[in-house]
Amino acid sequence: MIGADRVCLNQVTVLQQWTLPEFLANVRRHGIRSISIWRDKLKAAGLDDTVRRLADSDYAVTSLCAGGLVTAADPAAGRAAIDEAKRALDETAAIGAGCLMFVAGGLDPVDKDMGRTRARVLDRLADLVPHAKARGVKIALEPLHPMVAGTRSVLSTLKLANDWCDALGAEDTVGIAVDTYAVWWDPELDTEIARAGRRIIAFHVSDFLADTTDLRLDRGMMGDGLIDIPAMHRSVEAAGYTGPVEVEIFSQRNWWQRDPDDVIRVVLERCRTAV
Amino acid sequence: MIGADRVCLNQVTVLQQWTLPEFLANVRRHGIRSISIWRDKLKAAGLDDTVRRLADSDYAVTSLCAGGLVTAADPAAGRAAIDEAKRALDETAAIGAGCLMFVAGGLDPVDKDMGRTRARVLDRLADLVPHAKARGVKIALEPLHPMVAGTRSVLSTLKLANDWCDALGAEDTVGIAVDTYAVWWDPELDTEIARAGRRIIAFHVSDFLADTTDLRLDRGMMGDGLIDIPAMHRSVEAAGYTGPVEVEIFSQRNWWQRDPDDVIRVVLERCRTAV
Repeated sequence: MIGADRVCLNQVTVLQQWTLPEFLANVRRHGIRSISIWRDKLKAAGLDDTVRRLADSDYAVTSLCAGGLVTAADPAAGRAAIDEAKRALDETAAIGAGCLMFVAGGLDPVDKDMGRTRARVLDRLADLVPHAKARGVKIALEPLHPMVAGTRSVLSTLKLANDWCDALGAEDTVGIAVDTYAVWWDPELDTEIARAGRRIIAFHVSDFLADTTDLRLDRGMMGDGLIDIPAMHRSVEAAGYTGPVEVEIFSQRNWWQRDPDDVIRVVLERCRTAV
Repeated sequence: MIGADRVCLNQVTVLQQWTLPEFLANVRRHGIRSISIWRDKLKAAGLDDTVRRLADSDYAVTSLCAGGLVTAADPAAGRAAIDEAKRALDETAAIGAGCLMFVAGGLDPVDKDMGRTRARVLDRLADLVPHAKARGVKIALEPLHPMVAGTRSVLSTLKLANDWCDALGAEDTVGIAVDTYAVWWDPELDTEIARAGRRIIAFHVSDFLADTTDLRLDRGMMGDGLIDIPAMHRSVEAAGYTGPVEVEIFSQRNWWQRDPDDVIRVVLERCRTAV
């Protein structure tokens, strides 16, 4: 039950309809001020051009999505991935975003050992922390759904994100993003949200469709699926989160096929009735 | 690295090719003695006919798959589900299977509260335990992958299965099935396998394909995907499991389209090289 002033629109929700300049030109008309920017779109639009457009606007950029993907078993590939993640942190600072959404990366098929893979990610995160701190931006650890553990992120639970925060000891620089779609199934959800507390620096909403047809690109609009989103919203607020509710919907078969202004109107309606 | 004498073939692996009589007539030729039977196929073949065929064979029936689905929010629907699960336990005993593979059921859309839903399942399990004990069969709690938490099973982790075993206090009747496909992503996997110990009464293998196209019916043959199956095999053996390795592959687009004898030959080859 939130208004447009509390909504953050993640660019991915209208990823296939608008370029970044179009996104910036159109979203504000809907009363939405908070946005998250997709990195591929930023590259296509150009960093300098985007920085100018943002300076001429009153948008608040919540995050740049996404950086990370640091699971490579090969040490040279790992170093290259760290360098790329540092560039993402530089861009995060350049566009004035609060944080970089950190996606760990999937399993490298040359090393199927999940324990070793996760240890590599944690080591590489430790390398990124001083760079983020120097740039004045945060790293948001975002657990993704276990169904993409192999391909997209070995950070599969909030518990593991909390464990990594404990290990990194950098509470001023490393936070956690809670995404309803990624964590709703977790028996430890309430415990780990409470444990995360002020670490929670982003709250992403979308719904899990009963007839989901794709492991990554078939998310549902809030209210169309199985997740008790209002309950999770109450939990993150009880844990101390006061930031915007960020709508992040990957939807190849439905929302990406629609008029983007219509999509945003539905987003705002559902934020009032189903969040 | 196991031979046919250590393999259990779950009927679902050749579900669409053979009736139950055909399955029973053909599997033994491959040197496989241990099987698990699919309940729909049992119904189609008839219980009495199947009992006779099994009596004339030397098959060892590991389990009947599956019973449960006891998540309904409506009390009358819940009681009907318990009665149906009791019939599944009766059938488990009738065919001389060691256990009923218990699948919790998905979320009932009229109650999206996962905590309440899981509490209902545990209550109903407690109702089933005396019935299983009276029939001399076990209930195998099988966590399924979180990607089917909404539609098929709210029992999503080994930790929750262990917690339920603790709560039920019926170690002689309630055990746990560890399925590589369902749990491989879990950061708590080694801890919870060790905790499960002798509770592990089944070990199911299949692989998670990197390009999975379906949330339920697109499992891979061992060695074709991302799971370190030999490592998990060593873990369950270290925990005390000495039973067969059960091959359970749902595969609409691949293995269900092939000659079933060829499928079994590949199963046996991969059990030697990739388990």
